[in-house]
Amino acid sequence: MKSTMMNYQLTIPAILQRAKEIHPEKQIVTKMNDESIHRYSYGEFYTRVRRLMDALQKAGIKPGDRVATFGMNHYRHLEVYFAAPSMGAVLHTLNVRLFPEQLVYIVNDAEDSIIFVDKSLSKTLSDLLSQFKKKPKFVIMDDLEAMEAAPLADAIDYEEFLKNGNDSSLPLPEVDENKASGMCYTSGTTGNPKGVVYSHRSVYLHSMSICMSDSLGVCEKETVLPVVPMFHANAWGIPFACVMTGATLVFPGKHLLGHALASLLEQEKVSIAAGVPTIWNVLYQHLKKNSYDLSKLHTMIVGGSAAPLSMIEGFKKDFGIQILHAWGMTELSPVGTVCRLRTTMKDWNESEKMHFLAKQGPAVAGVELRGIDDQGRDIPKDGKTPGELIVRGPWVTVEYYGNPSQESFTEDGWFKTGDVVTIDEHSYIQITDRKKDLIKTRGEWISSVEMESQVLKASGVLEAAVVAKPDEIRGEVPVVFVVPKEGESIDKKSVLGVLKENFANWQLPNLEDIQVIDVIPKTSVGKFDKKVLRTRF
Amino acid sequence: MKSTMMNYQLTIPAILQRAKEIHPEKQIVTKMNDESIHRYSYGEFYTRVRRLMDALQKAGIKPGDRVATFGMNHYRHLEVYFAAPSMGAVLHTLNVRLFPEQLVYIVNDAEDSIIFVDKSLSKTLSDLLSQFKKKPKFVIMDDLEAMEAAPLADAIDYEEFLKNGNDSSLPLPEVDENKASGMCYTSGTTGNPKGVVYSHRSVYLHSMSICMSDSLGVCEKETVLPVVPMFHANAWGIPFACVMTGATLVFPGKHLLGHALASLLEQEKVSIAAGVPTIWNVLYQHLKKNSYDLSKLHTMIVGGSAAPLSMIEGFKKDFGIQILHAWGMTELSPVGTVCRLRTTMKDWNESEKMHFLAKQGPAVAGVELRGIDDQGRDIPKDGKTPGELIVRGPWVTVEYYGNPSQESFTEDGWFKTGDVVTIDEHSYIQITDRKKDLIKTRGEWISSVEMESQVLKASGVLEAAVVAKPDEIRGEVPVVFVVPKEGESIDKKSVLGVLKENFANWQLPNLEDIQVIDVIPKTSVGKFDKKVLRTRF
Repeated sequence: MKSTMMNYQLTIPAILQRAKEIHPEKQIVTKMNDESIHRYSYGEFYTRVRRLMDALQKAGIKPGDRVATFGMNHYRHLEVYFAAPSMGAVLHTLNVRLFPEQLVYIVNDAEDSIIFVDKSLSKTLSDLLSQFKKKPKFVIMDDLEAMEAAPLADAIDYEEFLKNGNDSSLPLPEVDENKASGMCYTSGTTGNPKGVVYSHRSVYLHSMSICMSDSLGVCEKETVLPVVPMFHANAWGIPFACVMTGATLVFPGKHLLGHALASLLEQEKVSIAAGVPTIWNVLYQHLKKNSYDLSKLHTMIVGGSAAPLSMIEGFKKDFGIQILHAWGMTELSPVGTVCRLRTTMKDWNESEKMHFLAKQGPAVAGVELRGIDDQGRDIPKDGKTPGELIVRGPWVTVEYYGNPSQESFTEDGWFKTGDVVTIDEHSYIQITDRKKDLIKTRGEWISSVEMESQVLKASGVLEAAVVAKPDEIRGEVPVVFVVPKEGESIDKKSVLGVLKENFANWQLPNLEDIQVIDVIPKTSVGKFDKKVLRTRF
Repeated sequence: MKSTMMNYQLTIPAILQRAKEIHPEKQIVTKMNDESIHRYSYGEFYTRVRRLMDALQKAGIKPGDRVATFGMNHYRHLEVYFAAPSMGAVLHTLNVRLFPEQLVYIVNDAEDSIIFVDKSLSKTLSDLLSQFKKKPKFVIMDDLEAMEAAPLADAIDYEEFLKNGNDSSLPLPEVDENKASGMCYTSGTTGNPKGVVYSHRSVYLHSMSICMSDSLGVCEKETVLPVVPMFHANAWGIPFACVMTGATLVFPGKHLLGHALASLLEQEKVSIAAGVPTIWNVLYQHLKKNSYDLSKLHTMIVGGSAAPLSMIEGFKKDFGIQILHAWGMTELSPVGTVCRLRTTMKDWNESEKMHFLAKQGPAVAGVELRGIDDQGRDIPKDGKTPGELIVRGPWVTVEYYGNPSQESFTEDGWFKTGDVVTIDEHSYIQITDRKKDLIKTRGEWISSVEMESQVLKASGVLEAAVVAKPDEIRGEVPVVFVVPKEGESIDKKSVLGVLKENFANWQLPNLEDIQVIDVIPKTSVGKFDKKVLRTRF
């Protein structure tokens, strides 16, 4: 029997068109680099996107061509986000914090035809120009940084480029929902970075899912500030979800810390902010010492790494802000789980609730997940047994771009995340570690993440990172790097004392392997760079 | 360029599987016909659905076969809702309030293979048995009505039928998302009823959309009671959305009025209820005279017909309950619009807000809509100019079952709804009438719905329906049918007086065309049956 439903395509132009039809009066706000505020409506945004689509076409960009961006979070970046896929091209966000050799590799691997670059970041690309094989065109997005743009072959200013495009009130082009709409490279902790290619369908479905009330709950009444960069797994899909629903969008530009961020949250009455734990840790310290009215800010979405329990408790107790844990990966568009307490947990005591809020939560609608052991058998849902997290769903990658290797996939097509998790009876997952970051001591696994969260309880500790070091007797031993809070010092013995409460003697680090350092090196997406730490012993 | 996203299928078994994995402990509650409460978990529900899938297969049901239901809202009906499409068959809900000849037509047109029927409704089918061409099998669902089931050829009790099925913990079968999953016939105000065939994809996407915060907002923390029957456009998709999210589901069985309904809302702490305005009108009168604790009930979803402004204001003022207007059709799975106020309207005064809440609202994400005039041109978004509403989207029908006629569709494939609307600058639609219910007086259109809402302001009026009567001089004149409130009477002159405030003299009904009647005849889905009213003069 045949269904009589329309073969309607789920596409990014359909999301764009909805913004114009339903909520053209809602606002998109950007804090520029000179701290001025740029403000316009979704209606104006739409008009400019249509012009940009036409300008891209006139610049010779064809369906399937890669249109790259190299910029922070701002309104012009959002225009490229929609113009490129709406005219059939592929939006390719470049991570501005990559090492030069990775950047060159990625631009050449993706064969970018054109790159939209922030003026303040133009020097980075200018230095690498000779190494780009395809000789992309450049468009400079003026972020109002007090400087001249670096020399880039035939670069044109964004607003000049836009003038080449005509307005259009014609219906947007129809696109096949399975066509490529965007691509993003994983940061690549081993080997070369690997590309993931999204489709219109995957972006549309991911947007619907994160707008569901049990997921991130993006909706018209929220004012959403993504600190998470637009080059970091699509800023977790937030730009697409906001345009779909008419949520007010607030872009921080380069202002990601201290007063610059806190005052933007206050002035624009932001209700949902999203970023990695390190960002919120710095903000928390700032808020403790300075006063802001953040009464509208009810939710801080945390992803990228796990937020420590102390941070979750601190934001709740001191500022009434809920930390909403989410877990995702570039390979998942990226959202896989969101941690909200369930109504069946409402009578639990505060400490049980906090314990659960520190987990990553159950799969969002659309994603299926399992935990498997080394033999590929499902782990029990006991909240204790670790296993590798595997996932599938309409916004999960089935391979890497130009890479036939199936080593990251099970035989029946699930994606192997490389994350080690426990799954409890409520199907809440907790990431215990990256598979390669586990420490094997006397034949038993120790989770580096678990040890880090214990170390944070020691007096004066701001940040902690634990990595494995080969050891003749024990196989591997943990090395603990700690960063002291501003103006405080750390006593190594008290760190060891705290660890003794939760770990057996043979699991403990040697006293000399507790190292106090000024800063923990971070990867391009703000995670602890354990690869770098491992080089320090 | 090729996307690397998984070709994951959006299917009803995937929704079912999620219920088992993520929220097996959440509850499904049914008030049986003897007023006892049946209560079980989504986990138990899943087990029984798996058994039912197997039992259906053993009964010879094949992929594509139509599995019909003829019942009220209860847990067994929900089991068939999921078992039939999950094993590849097509769920066909039969409207229990149809006239016998329509019922026979539909069963024969759909070629139902098996019919699951409530014990209390078995007599209706028993009387028609000889007219069913395909000789369907029958399964009796015991609703605990104090009666014997009527004789139906080889009928088997539901629980006996279930015993034929085995448990299974195997993965659910993989289904193509574009395959048919269900069908439903429109009530058919002219000609024969017409069938619409849903797909797995359309049901999945519709479920996601109504779970979005700006739409119906179905989510885990809600307790949802659909008064709207499961045979009326899939109970507006609520059963699927609840199973997807783990919202607590409360089924009223046959208890749709007065104390039986109000006490269920109170006892089960229902937070969202959904039904047609006539149901809520009766409940409102009951609540005014009796006392219940409905403090958890924050939202009443109204669809099927427009709720009068007085009802919206009354529920808000007297009980603090928000009436949430939605508009939909069987042809749309059914939800097309939901009316929530936007944050940009927050400073409006109460009367402006109420005026907007009486509209049907903007299109939900996934649906595109337009209003067109007789020449097919878009009407202006001025909130005044009427036009026919046309729609498209992934859960909109593109044709009727077995019916090649394209008269309900535009040349470029939009569905013509037959509803007359205005669209305002905020893209909120307001249904002013069915196209065929408009009254043409002296060459000008009068909206019957608008006149009805004015008549409701006259003293003592409970319900009002307006239809057109041919008139030699004016072309058509309105005939007004009014039903008095309990214990009150209606003065025709005062009705005319109220109308004079809003209509020109040549638009007014003649005094003798204002008719006081005991009850307005309703269609099988609870709408005013204007076809019947027109036979009364």
